[in-house]
Amino acid sequence: MSTEFPRVDTPSRAAEDAALRRHARLTKPLGSLGRLEALGAWVAACQDRCPPTPFARARVVVFAGDHGIAASGVSAYPSEVTGQMVANFVAGGAAINVLAAAAGATVRVVDMAVNADTPVGDHKIRRSCGSIDREDALTDEETRAAIATGRAIADEEVDGGADLLIAGDMGIGNTTPAAVLIAALTGAEPVAVVGRGTGIDDQTWMRKAVAIRDALRRARAAGGDPVALLRTSAGADLAAMAGFLAQAAVRKTPVILDGVVVSAAALVAEDLAPGASKWWVAGHRSVEPAHALVLEQLELEPIVDLGMRLGEGSGAAVALPVLTAAVRVLAEMATFDEAGVSTAAGD
Amino acid sequence: MSTEFPRVDTPSRAAEDAALRRHARLTKPLGSLGRLEALGAWVAACQDRCPPTPFARARVVVFAGDHGIAASGVSAYPSEVTGQMVANFVAGGAAINVLAAAAGATVRVVDMAVNADTPVGDHKIRRSCGSIDREDALTDEETRAAIATGRAIADEEVDGGADLLIAGDMGIGNTTPAAVLIAALTGAEPVAVVGRGTGIDDQTWMRKAVAIRDALRRARAAGGDPVALLRTSAGADLAAMAGFLAQAAVRKTPVILDGVVVSAAALVAEDLAPGASKWWVAGHRSVEPAHALVLEQLELEPIVDLGMRLGEGSGAAVALPVLTAAVRVLAEMATFDEAGVSTAAGD
Repeated sequence: MSTEFPRVDTPSRAAEDAALRRHARLTKPLGSLGRLEALGAWVAACQDRCPPTPFARARVVVFAGDHGIAASGVSAYPSEVTGQMVANFVAGGAAINVLAAAAGATVRVVDMAVNADTPVGDHKIRRSCGSIDREDALTDEETRAAIATGRAIADEEVDGGADLLIAGDMGIGNTTPAAVLIAALTGAEPVAVVGRGTGIDDQTWMRKAVAIRDALRRARAAGGDPVALLRTSAGADLAAMAGFLAQAAVRKTPVILDGVVVSAAALVAEDLAPGASKWWVAGHRSVEPAHALVLEQLELEPIVDLGMRLGEGSGAAVALPVLTAAVRVLAEMATFDEAGVSTAAGD
Repeated sequence: MSTEFPRVDTPSRAAEDAALRRHARLTKPLGSLGRLEALGAWVAACQDRCPPTPFARARVVVFAGDHGIAASGVSAYPSEVTGQMVANFVAGGAAINVLAAAAGATVRVVDMAVNADTPVGDHKIRRSCGSIDREDALTDEETRAAIATGRAIADEEVDGGADLLIAGDMGIGNTTPAAVLIAALTGAEPVAVVGRGTGIDDQTWMRKAVAIRDALRRARAAGGDPVALLRTSAGADLAAMAGFLAQAAVRKTPVILDGVVVSAAALVAEDLAPGASKWWVAGHRSVEPAHALVLEQLELEPIVDLGMRLGEGSGAAVALPVLTAAVRVLAEMATFDEAGVSTAAGD
């Protein structure tokens, strides 16, 4: 399976310019809708169409996997919760189910490496992964298979009509590899990326800091190769997310990024397929400290900042209605001419 | 017509506590949904019910009126635009129509003082108002009638089933009286409240600053009485908004505040009906400098911060889906027990 991605195109500058020109003709002072104007123009650019079309099939794909490092006691929750939460997603009772439904999106769950049998294991690479503080998360073959699976899932979704994609994560312990990937790719010190995850106490925080320090030493030894980095320090869930996010860009489909785990995968995806980040917008600002490093490196400005730290794609789902509103403004508002409204003096 | 409001109750502390306890049992780490958790609990408190019920009839009421001060050249747009935009609202082509529809809300437009005939003039108090830099905006009778009209509209909406209210504004020149009201009630200097409104140039900014300075001298002479302040420095649209926002609280109906104009009316409404602000949440942070003063004085934290400055209720409408999501999380997520998910170690 190839992990070579084709060249990623840039969203259409012509459609973006047309959208900005259209904003000047809609019945409101130019610029008065603030960020909504740029967001709408970005979707126009991704769709190469002005006005853009409101999303018909916004789709959340939650990538679930367990992590060997969880055995080191880096989370407030036991590993069994990953499989239990997968069942909760399938039953529709989790936060992402509710938030996606509220935003008009649907949810798909993919078990990439849960350490239990689940009803969504068709794409499973293995159970859990190596403890990244002292061994590789995956073999090279598993890594490539996970990336390819993420790519294939993006293709399936786009071929199935998805016009807006969100990746979500579920995996006890997964903020530890996320922090390691981010530190490795931004050059940050370990202490700058250790967050509270699901809400850990000080004892757990210290164990997590040690795990990240040790894992980061191994990650840095992997050098600059994104596939090697995923093999050494990620897991099948994160590798699949990276493939998914890169392929979404190849398929010219806009993505709303979620919090720290998805953004860690995004940072790797940008290395797998340079320019992919032009097809992504940041949904929210997570309270996880490492998340800010990704936003800065990818030059992304979050849509909302609500102090969230759940994962699952929840922050992106809360941001989706803002993006939808931005699209509908361009698609549905009347122009000054159409409405017979006078423009500003001098316009 | 009385401008005496009955005592405003406090939203239910018991329902709020029940919501916060419920948040601890839902399948997510406690606190991981950040601001959404507090917002959902606030709606539970307003509804005196846990879990809260998703909004069945969210309603935007746009109060339109012209302002005599516009003749001093304080806006980028001519006064005719107020009436033209009312027609645009009625036809469904304005930003608030699109943003409300995207958020699942409906829009009502009320002409309180437009300087033209409109199809929504049933509640009209007069055409335009006095130029507040040198004369009162309204007579005492007009002021009381406008406040009473706003109250009556809130009553009509709540009696008609509205369970979430948004006030919007439309009126060329209306950020000038808004700035004056805010400066008068916060003690701010004129220069601290002069904003760019619809997007004025430096020449216009200077004229607006002079108008605000002169109007503020007259506003301060009115003393601390909210009705006198509305008479001296507001207009029928702002007076009606104040009555509407106060009465929403009397009727125990949650409100999302919009930007600087609605927030200026809210500051007066809090004086008309002390405690009313407990029934309001701030939808967004406007770029108008005076808006920040209101948020600080009423201790409100905006839900979104998107650089918007349009008015019409647009910022509140963009925030509505976040509040809806917060309610649905409490209403629809599974608990740990229901989903068979393990809780955190030690819980």
